[in-house]
Amino acid sequence: MKNIQQLTPGQIRHLIRKGRWDQPTAGIAMGYAQANLVILPQQYAFDFLLFCQRNPKPCPLLEVLEPGEFETRFLSSDADIRTDIPRYHLYRKGQLQKTVKEIKSLWKPDFVSFLLGCSFSFEEALLRANIPVRHIEENKNVPMFISSIACKSAGAFHGPLVVTMRPIPSNKVTQAVQITSRYASVHGAPIHIGDPLTIGIKDLRKPDFGDPVTMKKGEVPVFWACGVTPQAVVMKTRPDLCITHVPGHMFISDLLNEELAVL
Amino acid sequence: MKNIQQLTPGQIRHLIRKGRWDQPTAGIAMGYAQANLVILPQQYAFDFLLFCQRNPKPCPLLEVLEPGEFETRFLSSDADIRTDIPRYHLYRKGQLQKTVKEIKSLWKPDFVSFLLGCSFSFEEALLRANIPVRHIEENKNVPMFISSIACKSAGAFHGPLVVTMRPIPSNKVTQAVQITSRYASVHGAPIHIGDPLTIGIKDLRKPDFGDPVTMKKGEVPVFWACGVTPQAVVMKTRPDLCITHVPGHMFISDLLNEELAVL
Repeated sequence: MKNIQQLTPGQIRHLIRKGRWDQPTAGIAMGYAQANLVILPQQYAFDFLLFCQRNPKPCPLLEVLEPGEFETRFLSSDADIRTDIPRYHLYRKGQLQKTVKEIKSLWKPDFVSFLLGCSFSFEEALLRANIPVRHIEENKNVPMFISSIACKSAGAFHGPLVVTMRPIPSNKVTQAVQITSRYASVHGAPIHIGDPLTIGIKDLRKPDFGDPVTMKKGEVPVFWACGVTPQAVVMKTRPDLCITHVPGHMFISDLLNEELAVL
Repeated sequence: MKNIQQLTPGQIRHLIRKGRWDQPTAGIAMGYAQANLVILPQQYAFDFLLFCQRNPKPCPLLEVLEPGEFETRFLSSDADIRTDIPRYHLYRKGQLQKTVKEIKSLWKPDFVSFLLGCSFSFEEALLRANIPVRHIEENKNVPMFISSIACKSAGAFHGPLVVTMRPIPSNKVTQAVQITSRYASVHGAPIHIGDPLTIGIKDLRKPDFGDPVTMKKGEVPVFWACGVTPQAVVMKTRPDLCITHVPGHMFISDLLNEELAVL
């Protein structure tokens, strides 16, 4: 097998479809947008779509498929959502039931698939501007925290905003805001800068998900809305059925990150 | 009655609610965002919400209410969508049935209300930067054209993109793009600059809606997605029932235009 880092998004999706790649997707298909996946039965689809509309920072919609559709149109013209993601989580009534490598046999004609932006896109932009991304430097998962900020509810869907934290040198905070502002469809600008307590976070060394990272002298904790929020909210709402990607095992699109950027 | 130009959005909505103002809302409550209204029965709501998600330039969602809700939360904390718009159009199966000043007696618990951004917001920003807005100068309606660009369909909803045209001096086109890019939630950046034929428009002197405006030497026609698109699409789709504002008779929100701007 050719080094996966040299493959195109289409070639990587082909490997995934054949069951030959079931690893996390960070660091591959660099430059291309990756997406979170949430699949819900149609009875929940309006409320969840409304939830995303009301909470665009944690739930930036890149593409929503028609009920029953499993082929993307916008993010790729030859992708099958049932097979092209390395690993899927299957939840029933909010409980994780199993992890699978494809969902063809589970597919129902009333499934609605939501693909949401992922911060991998803006992290590349930060790195290009020499702004450090600590969890990448330290080869860790990004630290995630359940904040005290409530999402706007929609129908039965409700829950707290989950945020990621990146320590930014104080003289680069403004630039980090500017750069990530260009990527509204992948979480966009920070939701909070500075004192973690303001948004209900007591200890930066104890993230709720992911790993703690080193804070250096002169660095400011900067918080962005996190793509774990929709999954957390879906789980709290306990729909009969929900299928998601396994965190870190994303859908790889044919869309360049720069195509998502504005200004 | 105090001069309407001196009243706050809440005071104007109160007049409208009492039936004491049924005129167009251009030029009043300056600085505050105004919104287009589309009300559909719940059976159409998912598809229309999906249509808006797929076509954010013509259909920039400012707020969507829960089924049956008639009070806004985001755009105002004391508005009633059934009474606070100067005039409403009632369509059945895509045919205009009547024009009314309130819809309280027509209200059904399955109605879903969509409020969409309006270009009044970015026109204020253009004027502040000394970029001429010809139809305002000439006291006309903005010229609107049915373009050859198809919207992305969603369920039964489909149709062509309707655009507005503003002649911009060629040395100010870049700045007009920059300024309107800041207002993504009110149609945002132009969808086309220059030759009208490229987007299927044969004669700028013959708009499909609104009035023709003067094109001066050295000016370039610049086209923006138009809020008439969702109404045209809804009418083409012929739902059993649809209620909209009467064009130009908008919902006046408590949100400042600048609160909608990014960067």
